[in-house]
Amino acid sequence: MPDAKLQVIPLGGLGEFGMNCTILRYGDDIIVIDAGMMFPEDEMFGVDIVAPDFKFLRENKEHVRGVLLTHGHEDHIGGMPFLLSKMSVPVYGTPLTLSLVERRLEEHGLAESADLREVTAGERLELGPFQIEFIHVTHSIPSALALAITTPLGVIIHSGDFKIDPTPPDSIPFDLHTFAEYGKKGVLLLLSDSTNSDRPGYSESEISVIPRFEEIFHRSEGRVIVSCFSSSVHRVQTILRMAKRAKRKVAFLGRSLNSVLEIAHGHGLLEIPDGILLRPQDIMTADPAKVAVLVSGTQGEPMSALARVAVDSHRHLKISSGDTVVMSARMIPGNEKPIYRMINHLSRRGAKTIYGSMAPPIHVSGHGSAEELRLLLNLVRPKYFVPIHGEHRQLSKHASLASHLYDDCLHSCFILETGDCLELDEAGARKAERIPVGRICIDSGTVDEVVEELVIRDRRNLSEDGFVIPIIAIDHLTGATEGPPEVVSRGFMSGEEGAQLMQEARQVVGKTLAASTPEEKGDLGVIQEKIRVDLRRFLTKRTSRRPLVMPVILEF
Amino acid sequence: MPDAKLQVIPLGGLGEFGMNCTILRYGDDIIVIDAGMMFPEDEMFGVDIVAPDFKFLRENKEHVRGVLLTHGHEDHIGGMPFLLSKMSVPVYGTPLTLSLVERRLEEHGLAESADLREVTAGERLELGPFQIEFIHVTHSIPSALALAITTPLGVIIHSGDFKIDPTPPDSIPFDLHTFAEYGKKGVLLLLSDSTNSDRPGYSESEISVIPRFEEIFHRSEGRVIVSCFSSSVHRVQTILRMAKRAKRKVAFLGRSLNSVLEIAHGHGLLEIPDGILLRPQDIMTADPAKVAVLVSGTQGEPMSALARVAVDSHRHLKISSGDTVVMSARMIPGNEKPIYRMINHLSRRGAKTIYGSMAPPIHVSGHGSAEELRLLLNLVRPKYFVPIHGEHRQLSKHASLASHLYDDCLHSCFILETGDCLELDEAGARKAERIPVGRICIDSGTVDEVVEELVIRDRRNLSEDGFVIPIIAIDHLTGATEGPPEVVSRGFMSGEEGAQLMQEARQVVGKTLAASTPEEKGDLGVIQEKIRVDLRRFLTKRTSRRPLVMPVILEF
Repeated sequence: MPDAKLQVIPLGGLGEFGMNCTILRYGDDIIVIDAGMMFPEDEMFGVDIVAPDFKFLRENKEHVRGVLLTHGHEDHIGGMPFLLSKMSVPVYGTPLTLSLVERRLEEHGLAESADLREVTAGERLELGPFQIEFIHVTHSIPSALALAITTPLGVIIHSGDFKIDPTPPDSIPFDLHTFAEYGKKGVLLLLSDSTNSDRPGYSESEISVIPRFEEIFHRSEGRVIVSCFSSSVHRVQTILRMAKRAKRKVAFLGRSLNSVLEIAHGHGLLEIPDGILLRPQDIMTADPAKVAVLVSGTQGEPMSALARVAVDSHRHLKISSGDTVVMSARMIPGNEKPIYRMINHLSRRGAKTIYGSMAPPIHVSGHGSAEELRLLLNLVRPKYFVPIHGEHRQLSKHASLASHLYDDCLHSCFILETGDCLELDEAGARKAERIPVGRICIDSGTVDEVVEELVIRDRRNLSEDGFVIPIIAIDHLTGATEGPPEVVSRGFMSGEEGAQLMQEARQVVGKTLAASTPEEKGDLGVIQEKIRVDLRRFLTKRTSRRPLVMPVILEF
Repeated sequence: MPDAKLQVIPLGGLGEFGMNCTILRYGDDIIVIDAGMMFPEDEMFGVDIVAPDFKFLRENKEHVRGVLLTHGHEDHIGGMPFLLSKMSVPVYGTPLTLSLVERRLEEHGLAESADLREVTAGERLELGPFQIEFIHVTHSIPSALALAITTPLGVIIHSGDFKIDPTPPDSIPFDLHTFAEYGKKGVLLLLSDSTNSDRPGYSESEISVIPRFEEIFHRSEGRVIVSCFSSSVHRVQTILRMAKRAKRKVAFLGRSLNSVLEIAHGHGLLEIPDGILLRPQDIMTADPAKVAVLVSGTQGEPMSALARVAVDSHRHLKISSGDTVVMSARMIPGNEKPIYRMINHLSRRGAKTIYGSMAPPIHVSGHGSAEELRLLLNLVRPKYFVPIHGEHRQLSKHASLASHLYDDCLHSCFILETGDCLELDEAGARKAERIPVGRICIDSGTVDEVVEELVIRDRRNLSEDGFVIPIIAIDHLTGATEGPPEVVSRGFMSGEEGAQLMQEARQVVGKTLAASTPEEKGDLGVIQEKIRVDLRRFLTKRTSRRPLVMPVILEF
């Protein structure tokens, strides 16, 4: 198929934060890069997890050659159960990444049937018309990959998530050379991580947290309690080393933390010094000056270990005056309030709390800042550029970081959003027709419990002004109403004033009924709508609020 | 009354962010310092404004000698309408502060009856047993005051909100000397602003935003659109000066911005260069390179001018490619998501967006950082110290900033939260019994529309899983049920699955009815509770969700 077109279609993660998933299609053949999830926005009431709608892949499933996973973060792998529950496809990733996927699949009973295939950096793989080379990049989780994908039209480079860490804790350097080689030979298209494109300069190396931790571990008189992301294996390694030097034993609190660290340890990616571990049940009896505790719950998640510690409801750890709590993670936008609330509780119980930005830092980002992004652009020298992973503001800033390349190699830069389609052929590249995309909202942990948009909209309305439900009994033969209408309400107004208003509401409904013909009363839809409109008008006029008004007609 | 006790009681703003209000009581005599509002937390569904419950003041109104306002920010004056709607008391503040209060009072029809009395820095005032001296401090709004209150037991210093700006734009310096004098003579108690106690070092001077603005105003090819708080009069002054140098005319968009700037201008606190103003209706016809626009809406408030510009629904301003939008304000925690959403819209329409931290800065804080707080502590040398204005984490960090003074003057430091009572007498200081405090939640702009806790709780429940309402008609004589039970639901489950579940729910209710005695059915409360419990158990088991279940019994 020499004349076939190459398409790049983001199913998620462009123009939004999280649930990264991008499709490459050449002719009919499809490969998928990542399948992540995101946490819901505030307005998605009662929804726990959001993932891309994989309908497009299901409709083309006989052509999907494989899923390539760049690394093991939830925004890159968290959608896998929802993808694999409906179709079967080989999944490629590093051993750590695949173990983290397997853990999620197990929760949904999908692990046995999954076809997981290990790859490592430097390896090559052929999938239909695509030849893939895996390239090692540095990030906050070990075993992270970029992809160089050779297609009949040229090479596409997908950066995955990365920073260019000059001194990574595991001493495995960012593979500048392979990017340079591809850049020298010519790259058709670069897809590159935009998460930190709005931060000037360079992100600090992961090892720059060492001085601050060293000081805290040595100087603190009480327990040192550190919260970081479970997947921040490098950070955990640093903390273990610092604890050893400061002669503190370390306990792990949190299910997710324990399972991720066990997986990383199993793959030889986390070294646990002999005799350093402390059982959670021994935390409170050990000398506080000899104790460090690693806890999950950086985002103030209500059921997390740290949130429970903060309100004194954790079995194994009780904050005492003199303890130090270190928040070694970024605050994901939208989570600031619950995080601060948790920090306040910890402070109230006597803990010294360390959070926010400071020098030296207690946290560094795993994503490259503007100068690192420019460095990758300069190495790869792409003909076309699509910034990925980020909201529009970040994509757009990343695009402007490439502007100096127009004098050199760059023909065009495309800001795509989820569902856009970039089409490339011999004649060039252009935005083609969008494909229908969507998101699935999942209530609890299962793959089936999808919450529909309509339900979320109702919850939003209910959350603002509650509901008012008039209930009318109508004789289905005569159209006569049985007794006075009943009106019930919640979340709207309470107390005497509310009761008085409901009394008046009954009269309003009574009036509407009296003014309706038997024919109208015989048609459920008509009489319901008349009552709804009249009652709603009355309530808005009297209270300037807009509760959900939903008349119920009982027929006898 | 030589033996009377002195009490310090925060009615708001300690252990929480906003709605600052503190009472001093000596014997029976009371003075009130500030009466602010706060914006509601996410979980306070449908509530627009939160203010302290002033019940304690109403109950003691014959003893309230006056309200002292430190400055004109909403978290210090926004509660005034709710205070003055129920009681009458003289209000003291600088002309700017009082004009801003008056504007709020007018909205509630309370301006005419209010007793507003102007004071200026350096002035003294006697209120019962309290002698007050007003001290000039630097802050993001002009005309900000600290208070030195001489009581029979000693001097109390209340810092108001402050930073120690070495180079304030209006050249009126922070009055170090008066603080120093009081410090030298001896201060019983210091109450000092803790907002930035968790930031190391010094806050930068307000004038340090000049280089960045200078660059933006000169280098941008299109319009420069700047969003800052309406009350940041110094910032607006800087922007006007920069615009003049760059030969740009300036238009103001936003009702609040216009009214605050008019007030500031009226008091001689804002200098508007001749011929610099541009009418909003002329923005789109003027040369973009000669235009600057000041817009309100730094926090992404949906009805604000900037939010409307972002979605292209503002009459006077439409973003074009090449325009620059500058966010010159901090993001209040909890507002990040709506702010970023707005920035994304602006970016999508082609604007270059400038936000976040950078050097030189586009925004500096109006509150002093750790070293400024230490400087004030060292100047004042208090015997007792109460950190004010902030959540527990900030109060506690502020307390630790005073620890070096224990070797010098400091006897004790008290971390109080709203409702706590600090009692001082000849024997010393101690926490006394708490007084009952609360907050009032206001729905729209009126003083009467108070939303009760119960209603907010219902809205929260409704927002998570919606409601399910079984409706049963019972013959009040025989206890027989008329027809099958009806079950209505919203925000819970929709579609076929939802319909099927409601069908089963009807059967569950039917079973409960069949298993109930006529006596039970005769007692509304009993039968309602039985149905509620059974149906709730069924729904939780089937869906693991917990909608609000509220049976309605209609009697015939």
